Amino acid sequence: MMRPYEHKAQYYETDQMKVVHHSNYIRWFEEARTDFMGQIGLPYRQMEEKGIIVPVLSVKCDYKSMTRFEEVVEVYTYVKKFNGIRMEFSYEIRDKKTGEVRVTGESGHCFLDPDYHLLSIKKKFPDYFKVYKSYEGKTDLYEEGKGYE
Amino acid sequence: MMRPYEHKAQYYETDQMKVVHHSNYIRWFEEARTDFMGQIGLPYRQMEEKGIIVPVLSVKCDYKSMTRFEEVVEVYTYVKKFNGIRMEFSYEIRDKKTGEVRVTGESGHCFLDPDYHLLSIKKKFPDYFKVYKSYEGKTDLYEEGKGYE
Amino acid sequence: MMRPYEHKAQYYETDQMKVVHHSNYIRWFEEARTDFMGQIGLPYRQMEEKGIIVPVLSVKCDYKSMTRFEEVVEVYTYVKKFNGIRMEFSYEIRDKKTGEVRVTGESGHCFLDPDYHLLSIKKKFPDYFKVYKSYEGKTDLYEEGKGYE
Amino acid sequence: MMRPYEHKAQYYETDQMKVVHHSNYIRWFEEARTDFMGQIGLPYRQMEEKGIIVPVLSVKCDYKSMTRFEEVVEVYTYVKKFNGIRMEFSYEIRDKKTGEVRVTGESGHCFLDPDYHLLSIKKKFPDYFKVYKSYEGKTDLYEEGKGYE
Repeated sequence: MMRPYEHKAQYYETDQMKVVHHSNYIRWFEEARTDFMGQIGLPYRQMEEKGIIVPVLSVKCDYKSMTRFEEVVEVYTYVKKFNGIRMEFSYEIRDKKTGEVRVTGESGHCFLDPDYHLLSIKKKFPDYFKVYKSYEGKTDLYEEGKGYE
Repeated sequence: MMRPYEHKAQYYETDQMKVVHHSNYIRWFEEARTDFMGQIGLPYRQMEEKGIIVPVLSVKCDYKSMTRFEEVVEVYTYVKKFNGIRMEFSYEIRDKKTGEVRVTGESGHCFLDPDYHLLSIKKKFPDYFKVYKSYEGKTDLYEEGKGYE
Repeated sequence: MMRPYEHKAQYYETDQMKVVHHSNYIRWFEEARTDFMGQIGLPYRQMEEKGIIVPVLSVKCDYKSMTRFEEVVEVYTYVKKFNGIRMEFSYEIRDKKTGEVRVTGESGHCFLDPDYHLLSIKKKFPDYFKVYKSYEGKTDLYEEGKGYE
Repeated sequence: MMRPYEHKAQYYETDQMKVVHHSNYIRWFEEARTDFMGQIGLPYRQMEEKGIIVPVLSVKCDYKSMTRFEEVVEVYTYVKKFNGIRMEFSYEIRDKKTGEVRVTGESGHCFLDPDYHLLSIKKKFPDYFKVYKSYEGKTDLYEEGKGYE
């Protein structure tokens, strides 16, 4: 089983509404996504060192409730779609203590080589392709109830 | 006519892909949105002082091309929908020099009072309601070609 | 014994020099400072709820070496000076794996009440005063060698 | 004469103390520094393209008063010291409307080649050396009273 990514809301992430500024959730998606890649054995840093760049093509975020300073959230990350050319992640951010959903969202990605040309993961990195493919559409990655203390 | 909001990409906004990090566009939407509110005579700071909070309920972003350090972009902001309870803005970010589209996006908002309860702008602030309503769905806010040098 | 604060360098914290942007270390100081306060039993959130604001009056940072994406650093935090009116923290940030010093720094603070007037912790919160005072100038807070794997 | 760099405080730059978070001033120093470089004819982007990297070695910041959302500040930048190997900038940030000093600070820099080796500007880029040298220690760069409306 995988473990959700944990993040503690920092003071500098709050704004004068006294909650976490909405732009930070996009950054927490990224934190969770790189953690997810590490957990499945394909750390993003290693991918970049092999010449694979994974830019963000789109992002979507629905804000359901607010996070306050020093609260801990858990980010559940899923591979929604993957065809070797494009990849879509989905995310659910919940308060660690109560399980209340804070934010849901998605991000779309492609793969580029160091010259910023489209890269077919399937052809060039078949091992990576297999790993990602094995997670596509799977929603039972995390232990049931794991998100609730 | 209105003028698009200008932003110069800063060094601290770049990431190791050598372009502006994708999360910053969400912040540029906000910069443009508050500038837009100022231009139509309802500065956001003044609204907060009158007890109106305008949280972000959702955000969407499509990344079309990359912005590099020291490039200047123009953000075109529009009121897509507004019914006095909810408001939707749409954005188009273009490179100032070439007019190339960098990012398009949307954000959804509601209105809250200082106790975080839903607020009907129509009932409580009819003057504000009228102003926003007059911009709803209008796409000819900016001088034609203004975005291109 | 206390434990140093750990932070993993995130992608959005890098800049086009391919290392962590220097402004983030100021934020990591803050992360470590609030973690320190939690460890000594005076969580910052709780202090704010009791009406104590602890603004930053000054900050100093010496950059010794660079942090790369996905590297983990440890922040060692110390109470350098404390007289009930002003407080100075000092920080040492080291790479977790090698122990190499990344950054050293300091921050100066005072205490304010909710109206932004100076607050004497000694008079108003003598319990808090005692706790902070007991850490003043102590440099043996962390287990020897703890910073090196 | 030079013009001070202007920055309008953004919502995402505030924190729950309802003022601009202290870490942002370090970023405003950088904005002002790159603007300064542009004004003296040596844009930072151009320098990086010629293979000159100018990392930050140290930074110092004294917070005198607080900046609120939508306030405009002016940053006055000076070359405090420059010997071709190291360079020190000093900064004064003032409220544009009142002239009140918000923050003063300094930053120390060196010059590196693309392999991160120390670079002597004097030997390799004598033209750049001359320009910087001509600003060293000069404090009358801005029109008297320019900072006050």
